[in-house]
Amino acid sequence: MRATVMYGAGDVRVENVPDATMRERTDALIRVLRSCICGSDLWPYNSMEPSKHGRRMGHEFLGVIEDTGPEVAGLKVGDVVVAPFVWADNTCDFCRAGLHTSCRHGGQWGHALDGGQGEAMRVPQAQGTLVKVPVGEDSPLLASLLTLSDVFCTGHHGAVTSRVRRGSAVTVLGDGAVGLSAVLAARRLGAERIILMGRHKDRTDLGRTFGATDVVAERGAEGITRVRELTGGDGTPAVIECVGTEQSLQTAINVVRDGGVISRLGLAQYTHVPMGVDTMTRNITLTGGAAPVRAYMEELLPDVLNGSIDPGQVFDRTVGFGEVPDGYQAMADRDALKVLIRP
Amino acid sequence: MRATVMYGAGDVRVENVPDATMRERTDALIRVLRSCICGSDLWPYNSMEPSKHGRRMGHEFLGVIEDTGPEVAGLKVGDVVVAPFVWADNTCDFCRAGLHTSCRHGGQWGHALDGGQGEAMRVPQAQGTLVKVPVGEDSPLLASLLTLSDVFCTGHHGAVTSRVRRGSAVTVLGDGAVGLSAVLAARRLGAERIILMGRHKDRTDLGRTFGATDVVAERGAEGITRVRELTGGDGTPAVIECVGTEQSLQTAINVVRDGGVISRLGLAQYTHVPMGVDTMTRNITLTGGAAPVRAYMEELLPDVLNGSIDPGQVFDRTVGFGEVPDGYQAMADRDALKVLIRP
Repeated sequence: MRATVMYGAGDVRVENVPDATMRERTDALIRVLRSCICGSDLWPYNSMEPSKHGRRMGHEFLGVIEDTGPEVAGLKVGDVVVAPFVWADNTCDFCRAGLHTSCRHGGQWGHALDGGQGEAMRVPQAQGTLVKVPVGEDSPLLASLLTLSDVFCTGHHGAVTSRVRRGSAVTVLGDGAVGLSAVLAARRLGAERIILMGRHKDRTDLGRTFGATDVVAERGAEGITRVRELTGGDGTPAVIECVGTEQSLQTAINVVRDGGVISRLGLAQYTHVPMGVDTMTRNITLTGGAAPVRAYMEELLPDVLNGSIDPGQVFDRTVGFGEVPDGYQAMADRDALKVLIRP
Repeated sequence: MRATVMYGAGDVRVENVPDATMRERTDALIRVLRSCICGSDLWPYNSMEPSKHGRRMGHEFLGVIEDTGPEVAGLKVGDVVVAPFVWADNTCDFCRAGLHTSCRHGGQWGHALDGGQGEAMRVPQAQGTLVKVPVGEDSPLLASLLTLSDVFCTGHHGAVTSRVRRGSAVTVLGDGAVGLSAVLAARRLGAERIILMGRHKDRTDLGRTFGATDVVAERGAEGITRVRELTGGDGTPAVIECVGTEQSLQTAINVVRDGGVISRLGLAQYTHVPMGVDTMTRNITLTGGAAPVRAYMEELLPDVLNGSIDPGQVFDRTVGFGEVPDGYQAMADRDALKVLIRP
């Protein structure tokens, strides 16, 4: 079968790999209908050391079940299913607490497993991992349903952990697909004031469509001043950080209100957080992290199915397998916001 | 009147200063019955640059009202009152949200104001700041009531913000008065497992009296291993950090369970927190800070009055004004856990 393999910075190839096959009694085999490129894939795309064996790519996918092991209940051949970006048994104590990212029997796609940017996947712990969606293989909802595998649920995680609720004011840092998803998620939870910090007008325009009430294009000190001006000097009680750089985190600390919460979604490119005594005086909370997507999918699914939200709008380009390398380059160049892959 | 002034590291004097006097219509004048030395006073005691004018010390006190301004309602001459370690109007939006440490009209004792380790205090925003306690000037409860001004409420803040509740497991780092108060507060909130990390047996013995179920005397990697062993490898969902050093914070990160919360109470001696991508994968939350004591006093007061908790046990030495410098030295030498001052 064909699958996407990264061999080093800027070197992504679609090539023939061994077919995905069943191994465990708890596996399912999936034919991939849609997958996509994640902002986090760009970090290795920009910096990965050359590798002889390469690395299988992709952790967001949606597909059709082609086979199930004897210990997989509730799923059958032909079902259309969405997979979270980590697999999990959905029964251990961490999963029961809603922290599927720390599942005792879970793990990450790629590495020793298949990657989502391929034709097929072996899915471990299939009964716990996969969520059946009541649509056909050609549903126009596939793009939005695919966002439940990572990006929209990740934005939702940021909104939930930063305590966004009806009437909240929130600042979202970053106009990438995660930032825009966080805007949409905050709006869905009833936020009244959503300040989006981003400087790419086409993206912040989509942010306004998703519910941003204010856009701040300035960065650094100017951006901080602007958010403070918009909020009577105080900043917002909730801040969702969707970039992952030290500068962005510093901005987050400077635009959060005393007593407020910063939720981190952007994959940390830093090792230390500048939170010394000043942030203690101000009672700032730092939270967030890898979204336990599986804990949110069933809650968010109905809103996607009934069309009340359309998170799939973050996909502004669709490619076939032949164009996957171009898709990576387009995202790296910011020519594309998020690239959908249709095998 | 007499008051405590620090002139540099190791140089604390009790000397004559101008009498506390009324200035604002919202002031009250207090004769101090009890005050004490805080662990945070030891940081300047160990490191303060020599100062010609010195710095008035003390932010925990309890006293008798001697005068009130015309805009102070609900308090009268002769009332025994406890003051939080910051003063606050108790009416602004931050105070209404329970964050009196960020009050729009509040501030800190000492600096331009009187310090608590003196004979008398001018108390700004007296109506909002002071809490009347229904006891006489010679009540045996004065020591425990004094802990409501800072140390016990601070421990409570750690327990609340680290989400301790009935049945919780929590690790408390540090066997100083704040750490022991955090143990007592966690016990009061119903924690079932309280692991106290500390290596001073007399202090950890008091910690056991306060409710610690396990004591870990080892530090660093050994201490981390020990807590992990005690918790089936996982660490505890709540961690209360009561030291303030980078090493202690690193230990906190290593003993908190995935998805757990670290609450910081120890005054940060670091500028950066080692929370990079690993803590995002684990969904660790960092919270806590300066306790909004005023928000907790009314909730905790009844338990002190009815004797169901006795947080005043953290005071293991009582001094008069003449011995205040000795009291500082005893705390710095760890000969005393916490020193009560009786003017």
